[in-house]
Amino acid sequence: MNFKMMGRFIAQILSIEGFFMIPALCISLYCGDSMAVKGFLWTILLIIGCVFLLMMICRGAPSAFYAKEGLVCVGASWIVLSAIGCLPFWISREIPSYVDAFFEIVSGFTTTGASIVPAVEDLSKGILYWRSFSHWLGGMGVLVFLLAFTGGKGQGFTMHLLRAESPGPSVGKLVPKMRTTAAILYVIYIVITLLNIVFLLLGGMTLFEAVCHAFGTAGTGGFGVKNDSLASYSPYLQNVTTVFMILFGVNFSCYYLLLIKEWKSVFKDEEVRLYFGIILASIALIAWNTRDLYGSLEETIRHTAFQVGSIITTTGYATVDFDLWPSFSKTILLCLMVVGACAGSTGGGLKVARLLLLLKGVRRNIRRMLNPRRMEVVRNNGSVVSETVLDNTNAYLSAYVVIIFLVFLVISLDGFSVATNFSAVLCTFNNIGPGLEAVGPTCNFAAFSDLSKLVLCWAMLAGRLEIFPMLVLFSRNTWRNR
Amino acid sequence: MNFKMMGRFIAQILSIEGFFMIPALCISLYCGDSMAVKGFLWTILLIIGCVFLLMMICRGAPSAFYAKEGLVCVGASWIVLSAIGCLPFWISREIPSYVDAFFEIVSGFTTTGASIVPAVEDLSKGILYWRSFSHWLGGMGVLVFLLAFTGGKGQGFTMHLLRAESPGPSVGKLVPKMRTTAAILYVIYIVITLLNIVFLLLGGMTLFEAVCHAFGTAGTGGFGVKNDSLASYSPYLQNVTTVFMILFGVNFSCYYLLLIKEWKSVFKDEEVRLYFGIILASIALIAWNTRDLYGSLEETIRHTAFQVGSIITTTGYATVDFDLWPSFSKTILLCLMVVGACAGSTGGGLKVARLLLLLKGVRRNIRRMLNPRRMEVVRNNGSVVSETVLDNTNAYLSAYVVIIFLVFLVISLDGFSVATNFSAVLCTFNNIGPGLEAVGPTCNFAAFSDLSKLVLCWAMLAGRLEIFPMLVLFSRNTWRNR
Repeated sequence: MNFKMMGRFIAQILSIEGFFMIPALCISLYCGDSMAVKGFLWTILLIIGCVFLLMMICRGAPSAFYAKEGLVCVGASWIVLSAIGCLPFWISREIPSYVDAFFEIVSGFTTTGASIVPAVEDLSKGILYWRSFSHWLGGMGVLVFLLAFTGGKGQGFTMHLLRAESPGPSVGKLVPKMRTTAAILYVIYIVITLLNIVFLLLGGMTLFEAVCHAFGTAGTGGFGVKNDSLASYSPYLQNVTTVFMILFGVNFSCYYLLLIKEWKSVFKDEEVRLYFGIILASIALIAWNTRDLYGSLEETIRHTAFQVGSIITTTGYATVDFDLWPSFSKTILLCLMVVGACAGSTGGGLKVARLLLLLKGVRRNIRRMLNPRRMEVVRNNGSVVSETVLDNTNAYLSAYVVIIFLVFLVISLDGFSVATNFSAVLCTFNNIGPGLEAVGPTCNFAAFSDLSKLVLCWAMLAGRLEIFPMLVLFSRNTWRNR
Repeated sequence: MNFKMMGRFIAQILSIEGFFMIPALCISLYCGDSMAVKGFLWTILLIIGCVFLLMMICRGAPSAFYAKEGLVCVGASWIVLSAIGCLPFWISREIPSYVDAFFEIVSGFTTTGASIVPAVEDLSKGILYWRSFSHWLGGMGVLVFLLAFTGGKGQGFTMHLLRAESPGPSVGKLVPKMRTTAAILYVIYIVITLLNIVFLLLGGMTLFEAVCHAFGTAGTGGFGVKNDSLASYSPYLQNVTTVFMILFGVNFSCYYLLLIKEWKSVFKDEEVRLYFGIILASIALIAWNTRDLYGSLEETIRHTAFQVGSIITTTGYATVDFDLWPSFSKTILLCLMVVGACAGSTGGGLKVARLLLLLKGVRRNIRRMLNPRRMEVVRNNGSVVSETVLDNTNAYLSAYVVIIFLVFLVISLDGFSVATNFSAVLCTFNNIGPGLEAVGPTCNFAAFSDLSKLVLCWAMLAGRLEIFPMLVLFSRNTWRNR
């Protein structure tokens, strides 16, 4: 492990974080929240100090990045990002416990949206902005941002980084240069976010709320500015959010393909088809199941579509308390939590692409059992999927299942019900936000013990970074110098 | 698909079933339960008729067995076995609904032990005997029995059959001849069952109860003869059952190795070590967690060890209502439900051997990520595991997860709580028996709808036959004639 390289890398990440804290500081200054101003100011000063120190120590670090360094740097930098990013919450005393503040910002950066704040309306505006902005930055990835706008050092660096931070079983390049790919993705991301803000403003939302909600939607995060999430907004605003949540769950390379007029490959994409198929089927089934709960068909469809879009894209906004829905509807939502959004989107979960590969792997196995001597390959959109990608996907599922059960076991020490604990694990690990029962849409995670909160933080980070960057931090091989 | 071959095969299986119904008929005659006598008599007559008919139709079937025929025959024969085996329950009116009777016998043959009978003490002795005997026959496998004692036709037949019916990721031969292997396994099975009966008799159990309990323990099934399972028996009888449950969860080839004095390879076996490690750790953790619930340490350890042994071996007997235990203990039990016993034992679940392979697969993947150019193989007990076995294990896990969520979804239509449904799925699919809440150890599955019961039957069969024989029945490739 090359610690100098890691140090320099973390310094770069911290500079970006400090830079992005300035708008939040300005909002706090404008609103005159002296405690929040203090929080942001001290944190920015601390970041400047750290960056200066790290740059001094880590001068002359080599610039060649290997697979190992890439993975470890991604894992470590997200932890540092969160450990520093939560300081404004804590210093301003708006979240008095450091562990709670850490939980809140990890939930922000990982676009989970699980909260320990009992009443978000009590928070000051600068803090609310920073909380929502963490979704936006975490959604597309802070390392991808670094790569896109400041330029990575060397080609190896960029591939390993993108692979570690971008969600999905295999990371494709849109254009030959990795840096340009990252920039294209970020520009598309910014444009759709702006569109979302415009549509929310047209519905009569204030600029501040529109920006915060658009950040939460774009990152598929779920932090809002009201205690009841989106329940008190107009049907128009709810529907706009439904549409944008679902759009942010689509693989971003599809938007690039649409831009260069490759319509066919988007409409034929197996993942996108399955994604929209699952959404439509879930809406139909839940609407049928909850048909007696709401006054009109329009209302039923609106709430159903909102919740389905919110859960499958792992956003976590809510317009109704779906914990009160019938068992069948809740179970559909639990299944959607596991499925998640498309690979290459800002959404979390297992990813539709991975589900497709796993199902195709099962089909191949059945065929092999029936005809042991026939060669069988797995295809995706017509081209053969490499065995390495299949192996990785399988290892991902194994790690996924084992981690779910381990976290489930640790947090059960707090004594909540099985459904609460199980949905809490699914919701944090898949970066969704609210779960069922004691962590349902009207409740929050404050009641868990500090140990459970830290374990859930680890689960959120593991879910966002696709498990392995958080696992290699615990591997002996990683820290061995050879 | 060669239907004649399948017909002849099913005829052989049915003859064995009819033959084994004779003791149950004798018990019913002895006790003078005229309805039960009627049930067994009519069923035996029906079996004789079916066998006669099938033998007539399927004369001249080829004797070469391919992989496809092996898989399909195993799946189909278990369904036929259950469809006929439940007739005594139904004809005797002791279980008035055919679906309930089918559920009960599937639960028996698959060694699940989930019951729809509200009070087993109301059943007649012949019916109770047949119910428990189904565990014993299903535990080691009716096809393995056929192979061991009547002789299979050709070597291909035997390998494909054993592979389909024996639990675990890879099926090994103890001796070069497959038939001898099957016979050795059955003899060991019979001897340990007899030992179990002797130990129970020494504790003062009646012969009938001892036989029934030994059948349930040997098959890791869980059907008892009392409403409160084993709660009202003496501590000695409970401890004997604990020990034998755990023994029946060990890979049977270990007993063969002990017989031929290969001590070392047993004590060094990674699966056996992990199996006992998990058991000891679980007992320690649960005993610590439930330390205030019972009067003495002896009582705590006794109940804890019993429940842990019962759940990890997927037996399902109970001495206490573990649904009343704290959340942490219940979660450990839920995890044990998924882990299951050793491969090559009569227990169900994912199997410890498969868990080991999956964990090693994850470790290999991490190493590969850190050093992409190094070759990494997975070893088990020192020898390299083939990629086919790893592929199969991975496909198994994918199918396992997908099936759990699908079954979970279907049974949620009945409107029970999430914890009830989830544990009902885990308990049937892993062939355990009782779950939590509405399907806890003091409750039963009678409240589910017929659709849910049939889906759970399918899950039990899929769990017992390691999924794929039940999946190929739904594959188009299977039924296509080429």
